[in-house]
Amino acid sequence: MTSPAAIRRPSPVVRAEATRRLESLATPAGALGRLGDLAVWLAAAQGVVPPRELDDVRLVIFAGDHGVASYGVSAYPPAITPAMVRTFVAGRAGVNALARAHGVHVRVLDLGVDDDLAGVPESVGERKVRRGSGAIHRTDALTAEETRRALAAGAEVAAEEIAAGGQLLLSGDMGIGNTTPAAALVAAGLGLPADEVVGRGTGVDDAGLARKTEVLDAALRRAGDRADDPVETLTALGSADLAATTGYLLEAARRGVPVLLDGLMSVACALTADRIDPGAAAWFAAGHRSTEPAQSLALDKLGLEPVLDLGLRLGEGSGAVAAVPVLRSAVALLRDVALLSEL
Amino acid sequence: MTSPAAIRRPSPVVRAEATRRLESLATPAGALGRLGDLAVWLAAAQGVVPPRELDDVRLVIFAGDHGVASYGVSAYPPAITPAMVRTFVAGRAGVNALARAHGVHVRVLDLGVDDDLAGVPESVGERKVRRGSGAIHRTDALTAEETRRALAAGAEVAAEEIAAGGQLLLSGDMGIGNTTPAAALVAAGLGLPADEVVGRGTGVDDAGLARKTEVLDAALRRAGDRADDPVETLTALGSADLAATTGYLLEAARRGVPVLLDGLMSVACALTADRIDPGAAAWFAAGHRSTEPAQSLALDKLGLEPVLDLGLRLGEGSGAVAAVPVLRSAVALLRDVALLSEL
Repeated sequence: MTSPAAIRRPSPVVRAEATRRLESLATPAGALGRLGDLAVWLAAAQGVVPPRELDDVRLVIFAGDHGVASYGVSAYPPAITPAMVRTFVAGRAGVNALARAHGVHVRVLDLGVDDDLAGVPESVGERKVRRGSGAIHRTDALTAEETRRALAAGAEVAAEEIAAGGQLLLSGDMGIGNTTPAAALVAAGLGLPADEVVGRGTGVDDAGLARKTEVLDAALRRAGDRADDPVETLTALGSADLAATTGYLLEAARRGVPVLLDGLMSVACALTADRIDPGAAAWFAAGHRSTEPAQSLALDKLGLEPVLDLGLRLGEGSGAVAAVPVLRSAVALLRDVALLSEL
Repeated sequence: MTSPAAIRRPSPVVRAEATRRLESLATPAGALGRLGDLAVWLAAAQGVVPPRELDDVRLVIFAGDHGVASYGVSAYPPAITPAMVRTFVAGRAGVNALARAHGVHVRVLDLGVDDDLAGVPESVGERKVRRGSGAIHRTDALTAEETRRALAAGAEVAAEEIAAGGQLLLSGDMGIGNTTPAAALVAAGLGLPADEVVGRGTGVDDAGLARKTEVLDAALRRAGDRADDPVETLTALGSADLAATTGYLLEAARRGVPVLLDGLMSVACALTADRIDPGAAAWFAAGHRSTEPAQSLALDKLGLEPVLDLGLRLGEGSGAVAAVPVLRSAVALLRDVALLSEL
C-alpha cells in the first residue's frame, strides 16, 4: 500500500481528441469557460470522447472521532459524531438531502467513531479500525498497523464502489474535531506552520481558534521529521477515517476513476494521496471552496480550482455532491451540442 | 406598462419563518452558506416554508438582431442569429444540452431577427415586433409603439409560462451584437460612460473593442437625457428582444414569481425592469457571473451575487440553466434536513 506505484495519467490522446471536439462545437471559442475544461478532463479520465453521462455517482462518508476534540478545538461535543452517523443512516442529514436531489448514492462507514453505534446496520461498522483516534498533540493518531489497515480499508471500499458501477467517486467526512488533523496533514504536506493552516471549522470562537492553533503546533512539533513521509504523517497526525479516505482516493486514481473532492478533509487526504503516489491528483477535481484556509492552500498545491464557491462549511461531502450537476453540465455540452460541421 | 406599479416584496413574514427553520436545522449555524440564503429567498418568494421543489423551471430565449452588428462590434456576422434560432429549435445548442440535463423547459421567440426564418415553427415568430432593431449610435432602436408592444409581448409570455405551471422563470438571449445595446442599458441605468461598461462579448479583438466603445459612446451621446427614463432608454438604446425581456422579467416580479437571471442581456434587462418598477429585483437571483464587466456592475447595483462563476460567455440563458441545480440544492436542504428538535 505504501510503496509508490506508477499512476497512469488520464489519457493524453483522449484529452487531445476531447479538446478538438470542444473546439469543433457550434459555440464561440472559449465560450464554455470552465465547463469546457471539466468536460475535457472527464473525457480523458473516462478514456472516451464524448464523455459518458454521469449516471452512477457515489459518495462514501468516512466517520471517526479524534482525541483532540476533548481539548477545546471544536464548537461541538464528540457525542455529535455518532448522532450524525445515525442521521446519515436515517437519510436526514444535509448531504442526504443534496444526494437525493442530485441522484448520488451515499454510503456511510464508521472507521473510528468512539461509540459502538448500537442498532446501526452492521455494514456501517464493517471497516472499523478503532474507537477514536489519538489526540495528535500528545500521541500518535494510529499505530503503523492501524494506518495500514485503514489505508487498505479505504482502497477496498473504492474498489467495491467501482465494481458496483461507480463512474465518479466522492468522499465525505464526519467527525467532531476532524479539521485539526486534516489541517495537520496539509501543514505536513506543504511544510507550513500551524497558524497558516488553522481555521474555525464548524465555528470555534477566538479562544477556540487559539487553542486549536496551539494543539496543531504541538502536534507538528511532536511529529517532527516524520511529517516528511506521507504514511508516517497519517500515523502521527491523521486518524483512522482520514487514512481510509486517503486509501479510497488513492485507489480511485490507481484504477483510473475520476474523483470529485469535497472540503478540507477530502482535500487534505487528496494531498496525502498525491504525496504517496505522485500524479494521483490528475484524477481529482475540486467540488467547492470551503471556508477553511488549509483547503485552499492544498488545492493550490494540487493545481485544482473549485467548481463552486458558496461559503459552505457543512462537511459530510456536501460540497462535492452540490457540484455534481456542474460536471453533468460539462458532460452534456461536450456530448450533445451540435458540431459546426453539422450546421 | 410604463407607469410604476407597486411591486410587493417577497413576504417578510415567510422570510422570517424560513430563517427560523434554517436556524433550527440539524446543521452548524451558518454552515449552509449561500445555499441557506437562497433557500430563504425562494421560500419568501414562493410564500411557503419549506419551499416547494422546483419541478417546473422555464427558460424563454428572446432572439433579435441589432443594427450595430453591421459596424464591427461583434466577432460574428448577423447571419448567425437565425442560424442559432434554428439550432435552438432543433435542440442542438448549448442551452438545449444543459436544459435537458437539468429538466428545464426551453421556449425560443423571435422578437426582432432580421430574417423571415422560413420553415421554423410559426409559434417562434408569434411575438415578432420587427426585423432587426435600429443601429443605436445612429438612430433609435425602436419606435415608442414598438417598445410598448415588445414590453407587452414579454409580459404576456411571462404570464403564459406562469399559467402553464412555471415556478421559476429564466431569460436567455440570442442576437449577434446584443452586448452593445445591453451595455448601453447598463450605462444608462448606472450613469456610466461607454468605456466602463464595454466588454468583448463573444470575443472581439482590440480593434473591435475600440469600435464597440466608439459606437456605445456615440449611442449614449445621441440618447442624452432620454436615458434618464427607463422606457425611453429601451426605445433609444435597446432593441425589440431586450424590451421584451424587460417586460418578461417585470411581469414575473409583478406576479410574484422568482426569476433566475443569466448573463449581461438578462441582467441589463433586470436593471431596466427595476428602474421601471423599483423593487422588481427582489424577485431576482443571479445565476452566474459573466465575463462582461457591465453585468457585474449591474448586479452590484441590484444587490445580487451570482451563484456560479465559471467563465461562461455562451449567452442563450446557459448560465442561468447551469445554476438551476444550485437552487434545487438550496430547496432540498431547507425541506429535507432533520430539525434539531427531531433528533
